[in-house]
Amino acid sequence: MIGIGAGDPDHLTFQAAKAIAAADVFLLVDKGEAKHDLAGLRHDLIAQHGRRPYRIVEARDPERDRTAAAYTEAVEDWRSRRARIYRSFIEDELKDGQTGAFLVWGDPGVYDSTLAALDEVDAEFECEVIPGISSVSALTARHRVGLTQVGRPVHITTGRRLAAEGATADDVVVMLDAHCSFAEAGDGFRIYWGAYLGTPDEILIEGPVGEVADEIRAVRAEARARKGWIMDTYLLRREPPARG
Amino acid sequence: MIGIGAGDPDHLTFQAAKAIAAADVFLLVDKGEAKHDLAGLRHDLIAQHGRRPYRIVEARDPERDRTAAAYTEAVEDWRSRRARIYRSFIEDELKDGQTGAFLVWGDPGVYDSTLAALDEVDAEFECEVIPGISSVSALTARHRVGLTQVGRPVHITTGRRLAAEGATADDVVVMLDAHCSFAEAGDGFRIYWGAYLGTPDEILIEGPVGEVADEIRAVRAEARARKGWIMDTYLLRREPPARG
Repeated sequence: MIGIGAGDPDHLTFQAAKAIAAADVFLLVDKGEAKHDLAGLRHDLIAQHGRRPYRIVEARDPERDRTAAAYTEAVEDWRSRRARIYRSFIEDELKDGQTGAFLVWGDPGVYDSTLAALDEVDAEFECEVIPGISSVSALTARHRVGLTQVGRPVHITTGRRLAAEGATADDVVVMLDAHCSFAEAGDGFRIYWGAYLGTPDEILIEGPVGEVADEIRAVRAEARARKGWIMDTYLLRREPPARG
Repeated sequence: MIGIGAGDPDHLTFQAAKAIAAADVFLLVDKGEAKHDLAGLRHDLIAQHGRRPYRIVEARDPERDRTAAAYTEAVEDWRSRRARIYRSFIEDELKDGQTGAFLVWGDPGVYDSTLAALDEVDAEFECEVIPGISSVSALTARHRVGLTQVGRPVHITTGRRLAAEGATADDVVVMLDAHCSFAEAGDGFRIYWGAYLGTPDEILIEGPVGEVADEIRAVRAEARARKGWIMDTYLLRREPPARG
């Protein structure tokens, strides 16, 4: 399982490039037409770093019921179906001793279900995980801010949770927020927002939430309509009290 | 500011390698004899990816008062002195138009004071931050576990805070814990612990906190005594309730 970074081909690590070179078969799971820029980059990375002969197997991502009220159950159902795809990949496409590779966006540990789905696969295989640059690291690097402050915690959470709970710390990273829930954080926060991080379409907006919230909503809606998809994330940081 | 990953030279990204190649002068801040393995790796990365002619400037890290009761103030004082090192590097070692580089362990955003110290530098320069594989990403990859679970938050915090507050979520990553505070998390947690991640000395221990805490303490003390330094981090994950 190879983390390939947040969108910039140069986010790839040497470890990941070597793992691509060591693979016999790649499984690319297609999430549908809308994300074709990303799928293209995976093909490019394999063409650049793969060692021939190799094969590419393409599979269709199982549909997820995004209307389900019970989000966790919908994800678990989707994960079981994805586990079946992995199982048939391992049993039908890999001979004994061969190495299969999954290319995973960002870091395989951060809100990605590939590892959890692979845990459900009832087949004999060894698994190695190659860490990648997460969208969180890309976000803070591009904004030139620390993720953490001295001696203080950072919470990483989802848009749904932020909407339900508000900001649970002075520093909160929010992922998977389709509903621009940043205004729910409460007063006194600064936002560092980024979309399409690491790609030529990257957009960065920073400022007090109250001042830039409308701009982010408008920019996000326009970009999403134009490209057909969006991936964005943000850091909320409580502004220090004014001195004096 | 170039993130070079958690300890494995192959954690380097292509972006970081290109940034090393683009630098005219490198500033290496020496944290003292104890960490010489790490300093050696920085020299190796520069030798491998740097483009000649380049220069290396070495500076001594200002002493930090580790006995101070007021941890945050001690760090702020240390940061101001570090900022003076950066300022003199920028003003005295770099000609107009030249590029200086700092090689930072892990990801520059995660509990690293370089960015914050650079913010205090009163000189004219442009700054670019290259994200790196953090010890958090390395930890979860090596243990083959997700950092996050579906729809759930993860808290990243320090050993001091864990000792003071206990586990504030079902998933907590703890850094900078010199006192093995994991037992303070409370009952029912599993620990994924790692030291010297990404290096030939890497140690991984996993299990219910109650069962492996003594082993981790003993292994940590022995390794620290033998090598003269240790860098470790861990994920605490609340065990799911038994079914049935």
